[in-house]
Amino acid sequence: MPLVPLPTLLIEPLVRQALIEDLGRAGDITTDAIAPADRMVRCVMGARQDGVIAGLDLAALAFRLIDPAIRFEPALADGARATPGATVAAIVGPARGVLTAERTALNFVSRLSGVASATARLSASVAHTKARIVCTRKTTPLLRTIEKYAVRAGGGANHRFGLDDAALIKDNHVAIAGSVAEAVRRVRAHVGHLVKIEVEVDTLAQLDEALAAKADAILLDNMSLDDLRRGVATIGGRAISEASGRVTPENAPAIAETGVDLISVGWLTHSAPILDIGLDTVD
Amino acid sequence: MPLVPLPTLLIEPLVRQALIEDLGRAGDITTDAIAPADRMVRCVMGARQDGVIAGLDLAALAFRLIDPAIRFEPALADGARATPGATVAAIVGPARGVLTAERTALNFVSRLSGVASATARLSASVAHTKARIVCTRKTTPLLRTIEKYAVRAGGGANHRFGLDDAALIKDNHVAIAGSVAEAVRRVRAHVGHLVKIEVEVDTLAQLDEALAAKADAILLDNMSLDDLRRGVATIGGRAISEASGRVTPENAPAIAETGVDLISVGWLTHSAPILDIGLDTVD
Amino acid sequence: MPLVPLPTLLIEPLVRQALIEDLGRAGDITTDAIAPADRMVRCVMGARQDGVIAGLDLAALAFRLIDPAIRFEPALADGARATPGATVAAIVGPARGVLTAERTALNFVSRLSGVASATARLSASVAHTKARIVCTRKTTPLLRTIEKYAVRAGGGANHRFGLDDAALIKDNHVAIAGSVAEAVRRVRAHVGHLVKIEVEVDTLAQLDEALAAKADAILLDNMSLDDLRRGVATIGGRAISEASGRVTPENAPAIAETGVDLISVGWLTHSAPILDIGLDTVD
Amino acid sequence: MPLVPLPTLLIEPLVRQALIEDLGRAGDITTDAIAPADRMVRCVMGARQDGVIAGLDLAALAFRLIDPAIRFEPALADGARATPGATVAAIVGPARGVLTAERTALNFVSRLSGVASATARLSASVAHTKARIVCTRKTTPLLRTIEKYAVRAGGGANHRFGLDDAALIKDNHVAIAGSVAEAVRRVRAHVGHLVKIEVEVDTLAQLDEALAAKADAILLDNMSLDDLRRGVATIGGRAISEASGRVTPENAPAIAETGVDLISVGWLTHSAPILDIGLDTVD
Amino acid sequence: MPLVPLPTLLIEPLVRQALIEDLGRAGDITTDAIAPADRMVRCVMGARQDGVIAGLDLAALAFRLIDPAIRFEPALADGARATPGATVAAIVGPARGVLTAERTALNFVSRLSGVASATARLSASVAHTKARIVCTRKTTPLLRTIEKYAVRAGGGANHRFGLDDAALIKDNHVAIAGSVAEAVRRVRAHVGHLVKIEVEVDTLAQLDEALAAKADAILLDNMSLDDLRRGVATIGGRAISEASGRVTPENAPAIAETGVDLISVGWLTHSAPILDIGLDTVD
Amino acid sequence: MPLVPLPTLLIEPLVRQALIEDLGRAGDITTDAIAPADRMVRCVMGARQDGVIAGLDLAALAFRLIDPAIRFEPALADGARATPGATVAAIVGPARGVLTAERTALNFVSRLSGVASATARLSASVAHTKARIVCTRKTTPLLRTIEKYAVRAGGGANHRFGLDDAALIKDNHVAIAGSVAEAVRRVRAHVGHLVKIEVEVDTLAQLDEALAAKADAILLDNMSLDDLRRGVATIGGRAISEASGRVTPENAPAIAETGVDLISVGWLTHSAPILDIGLDTVD
Repeated sequence: MPLVPLPTLLIEPLVRQALIEDLGRAGDITTDAIAPADRMVRCVMGARQDGVIAGLDLAALAFRLIDPAIRFEPALADGARATPGATVAAIVGPARGVLTAERTALNFVSRLSGVASATARLSASVAHTKARIVCTRKTTPLLRTIEKYAVRAGGGANHRFGLDDAALIKDNHVAIAGSVAEAVRRVRAHVGHLVKIEVEVDTLAQLDEALAAKADAILLDNMSLDDLRRGVATIGGRAISEASGRVTPENAPAIAETGVDLISVGWLTHSAPILDIGLDTVD
Repeated sequence: MPLVPLPTLLIEPLVRQALIEDLGRAGDITTDAIAPADRMVRCVMGARQDGVIAGLDLAALAFRLIDPAIRFEPALADGARATPGATVAAIVGPARGVLTAERTALNFVSRLSGVASATARLSASVAHTKARIVCTRKTTPLLRTIEKYAVRAGGGANHRFGLDDAALIKDNHVAIAGSVAEAVRRVRAHVGHLVKIEVEVDTLAQLDEALAAKADAILLDNMSLDDLRRGVATIGGRAISEASGRVTPENAPAIAETGVDLISVGWLTHSAPILDIGLDTVD
Repeated sequence: MPLVPLPTLLIEPLVRQALIEDLGRAGDITTDAIAPADRMVRCVMGARQDGVIAGLDLAALAFRLIDPAIRFEPALADGARATPGATVAAIVGPARGVLTAERTALNFVSRLSGVASATARLSASVAHTKARIVCTRKTTPLLRTIEKYAVRAGGGANHRFGLDDAALIKDNHVAIAGSVAEAVRRVRAHVGHLVKIEVEVDTLAQLDEALAAKADAILLDNMSLDDLRRGVATIGGRAISEASGRVTPENAPAIAETGVDLISVGWLTHSAPILDIGLDTVD
Repeated sequence: MPLVPLPTLLIEPLVRQALIEDLGRAGDITTDAIAPADRMVRCVMGARQDGVIAGLDLAALAFRLIDPAIRFEPALADGARATPGATVAAIVGPARGVLTAERTALNFVSRLSGVASATARLSASVAHTKARIVCTRKTTPLLRTIEKYAVRAGGGANHRFGLDDAALIKDNHVAIAGSVAEAVRRVRAHVGHLVKIEVEVDTLAQLDEALAAKADAILLDNMSLDDLRRGVATIGGRAISEASGRVTPENAPAIAETGVDLISVGWLTHSAPILDIGLDTVD
Repeated sequence: MPLVPLPTLLIEPLVRQALIEDLGRAGDITTDAIAPADRMVRCVMGARQDGVIAGLDLAALAFRLIDPAIRFEPALADGARATPGATVAAIVGPARGVLTAERTALNFVSRLSGVASATARLSASVAHTKARIVCTRKTTPLLRTIEKYAVRAGGGANHRFGLDDAALIKDNHVAIAGSVAEAVRRVRAHVGHLVKIEVEVDTLAQLDEALAAKADAILLDNMSLDDLRRGVATIGGRAISEASGRVTPENAPAIAETGVDLISVGWLTHSAPILDIGLDTVD
Repeated sequence: MPLVPLPTLLIEPLVRQALIEDLGRAGDITTDAIAPADRMVRCVMGARQDGVIAGLDLAALAFRLIDPAIRFEPALADGARATPGATVAAIVGPARGVLTAERTALNFVSRLSGVASATARLSASVAHTKARIVCTRKTTPLLRTIEKYAVRAGGGANHRFGLDDAALIKDNHVAIAGSVAEAVRRVRAHVGHLVKIEVEVDTLAQLDEALAAKADAILLDNMSLDDLRRGVATIGGRAISEASGRVTPENAPAIAETGVDLISVGWLTHSAPILDIGLDTVD
């Protein structure tokens, strides 16, 4: 799966807003006081941990929006693995702009690299199976587009991007509709022909109902390994199978070995720690 | 330190944008298809982990912006401690709106409660000392105001909010100015009388220079416990002392026992996992 | 298929912006000069043509945003059929606000009702078949969400909402990939499991390739009725079939009779004339 | 009347928003999956119908905002007449960007060219008279500035741009004021010296009143040809005369021959079909 | 000339933005720390100078946006004259909100009242003539709509609101066109029928040319009183006459006595000092 | 104190919005009608009064945003003193863009130069003392960042930028807290370690209390010269001393001679007249 950069139109408003959040009403008063306008600086953005890089376009944009004279030269590409000490990018330009944009650039890259790295770790743990790691809608508010991108950078796949691009029938929906079958029927009558329908099931009985209703995908929620195995067998390729609930790096391999197609993990976007990345001046 | 709610003017744009991010161009197609307009629902927002709650105003706003007919009744206040199973809030209203806003509301509350909980844990670990836990500028882009609030909800204190409300002289600044003394001199000549100046020092030699320059606060960065103790003694109450660098729940007590006034921790806002909070339908 | 109102969050920015566009920098100088603040008015929004109504929520919002004291009472619901002379809604309130908001309210309702009416007419013409009328991405810039809604109000169905919620492989894509098969393969490897893939084919040879690649839907573009029939037979229920290209009210029945599932028509949103709806004062 | 390009400041927000509307949260997933980053493409934007072109600056901007590396070379200028098969512009650049921006660019150009073409047709039909075709405030919400521009591109003239740049006294205003004379008096006392006052009259009696009040322009609404002729004679050059109401290409010449100065037509902006313009890859 | 309130849609964005400008990222930290949530306060907004009030709707909105529980009760209306010590409005509500919004509310009211007061003073000085005081486009950036409103509140009239609602031919335009006549001809061919044309003339020779070209209004720029008198006589009612240039309260009466219709004064909006208005707590 | 340019990110939204405010919906209709696209013009922005220049970056941006082909060449830098007739900048480029952007550019520069000039005048009058002139929060709504910058350009210093970057305890706060001591205590417990606390005192008794509470700065409000002198003596360097209230160019020297550190003057930003700066064509 190729990693394609996000359109600038989608990321520039985020970077611009993040910089303004940091600049406040007066800008970088420390740097402005200390650094002469003509002072140049050369920095290295370096990884201090093992992980997968994501978000370099946002970092580049942070420096460029502060001062177009700053050159940002990536040494790695998004999706690449960094080892501690590895140079991620070189930044050369007026010290004022570099120091002003530094934190915003790092905040983006370290967070997104954290997401990518967590995804990569989990993906590696299930690499011996056909299962893929996917994210959820449990993303940081306002950052969904870039966090979903970071998941892709880490080798994972994306679940739906919002409430509108796919239907996911959960327990509350089934309770309102009265049955899985009726819930699917209502959704199918309502949505366009390019919208897939996934059904969350808690029991194997519900699973039969969902299959009978020809759901495109089945979310096997919080099931034991045994039930997952039985679920996969029951599905028998008639729908995509997805396991979810309390997935950890420890239990992910076992879950994957049940034969599910996908393992969805909210943790990737709501709780992955950042990847430690810093900026150091050279010479 | 009283916890004062954030002005609606500052949080409403975030909630509005987060909801739009989830609604996309077509809204909640699953719920719209299944839930009749007159179907009411009663839900409980409940904690599934031990922690400190923060962000209920944002959750309330999420439901209200989707449907003003939804009533959001907090059972706990921001800053309160929740135990697993505790009711955080009750939500009653049209099922369509409740299910549509659910994830956005939870994304805010669980994330901010995660920050508050991490802060509270760390604060508790140093409660036998005078040291306070403070956050940094390593916040999630676009969420600084609410993450700083969550730190306060967890009993921590706030470092500066941006580049413009206080001066923090770091190693790069010292390198450009030539000395700590010159750096402080330049900043003092540049900033207003209500701006404090903090100096980051790596060595005890630099510390002497910073004190001589009458810095308001000293950031003792990445020092050994011994150096911290010596630093605190050297400062002798002439400036606020702050320790930073690789703080963990394990080493925080020892750091605090060196006598520093503040311990700053980027981890609170860049890597704290969410607090697990869910929404369940009742009857 | 139930017609569910759009979330206020999605339509309010449009109404607000449209009103500001009309108010300019000085507001309604004619009405302000003439109507005393306490002058009340009662108006009827009435249809002057046969058609299907859509957009009443936007009209209601236009009046409310100008003056919350204005009551807007719909006599019909979106999706209902109006005959010439039928009352669509009653508006009562301060004359100043009513006259100021009138044109913006009408601009929304007449345009969306035009889209709904065109959709309804076309849908009626194929009602004896299983074919459904669907819209395209040839919508008015900035109005996609509400125009897609108007299509639903007229009894039509929605194609994808943008470039990101479904994959549609067109001739240019096939040319770049080298073959339909390779194009589908690349897309399948790239997108999430809830994204459907539709392939546009110009020939029956391409159709075979698309079916072999297990496309979810096939767009039979600009084909003769004979080719459409052959295409439908070839597909044999293995994918959704969609006809497109130069569809008119005249040829739609014949196209529908070929057995296709869907007929997509850009005309609905890019060229449908408005439905003539006016506002008249009643004493 | 020279056709002057609109300031980029006024059109860029529209193009940006339209692109984002189409990109959604994930961008062009089909093209991203299929087209390698270095694949170049050369396309021709071509007219498939006879008409007048408008909106090329918006199309150029759409491509540029997606990828500054795309070159957009107009073969025609806004306001020029295109025949079926005519090249409107050439587009050369990375295939990814070109395919991503294509629909948004076409949506703008085909819609605005539709407005320009309808205006040109109507203008041609009255070219043997002194009458000019003018538009109204019945424009597409959010697109007034560019639709008014398209009317100019088609050889028409603009009526007022909003509620604030000229006064137009309609029947409702007269009803509130009590008489045409009192309505004009109130407006004249209220507005600045550079604001013209136009009065809509339904009868020749009202016309006398409006002339006595020294209205700058008179809107003869929905009058018979005989009444129009009488109205023009009565006005006798003392005010600008404008005819409106149910104007069609068929009756426009006769209306123009009554001697009116202007014929205003809402249809130009609310119901003109698009001009069919497409994008084809060459080699 | 009645003073009509500005639409909330036009002023709310300004008040919202001004409050956010003052709240920054952390809100009113002083008041939040000191005032308990249930502490109520009653304040009087009072004039400390003689002048004319304008902008109370903006003040009311400032308090309401911070806390809807605050009641703002105007004692005077916009356009009313206040004497030192006069109560302008009473404000009752939670102390936190009142103190937080106070400065923003006062900044709007004192500035706009300053504009209104300056206008009223100048208007009074020419009240014995038919001349009216008008403003210019030399307004505070972003505040044009409300400053033009303040001019009306002070009894003045408005010149054009921007570059687009009327044509004003200045010396640079004449230089480019080659002559006044040609400049007017070009403009008349370019603009719609509801756009007036004013010509700025420096000499009586240019005046003749402008009159021959049937300009709607003539701006007699920087002329001596004698030339103004001659200009007015030459115009003889064929166009509106406007005097401008270095108008002061001292020379305004003499200028007005030359018989000009209008005297335009940039000073009203670019240099009028504020009206001193304060907020005092009562009991 | 070096004058550092404001980040483009902070000023561009202001310039963009100001231009759009002037362009309205149709742009500069006069210039568009008269100036051919290829007509070039060379202008000089010149001072017509003695004063200090500020805001050239905003002027440059105004021209650039209208037409990137316009070259703006400053002859002076912000903070420099201009004499009547002095060239401030040269502008060369297409006449259309230059004339369109002229007023917006001048509105920014003349206003900010007015603030800078007033500050410089007042600063000069106290130059024989150690007192510095500082501004307040009585700024023009939406322009705080650039007006505070203009104060710096004029040689003054900045007070706090908003409600959130420093604590200022006023009479109302003391009334609520019960005493100065309690007010300071509450604030100190609430705010971060980098927030300074200033206390406004009306009497020398309050001053003692404020000093005992270790306030960082003391605002001596509306005191007689005698009381100011006593206040300064009492403070004795233990806090920064600031005088405020009815400061004029006349009484400023005497106030400064009392020995206060700072004199704050709202007049600089709320009532300073503009500096007269114009644009003249030099073919």
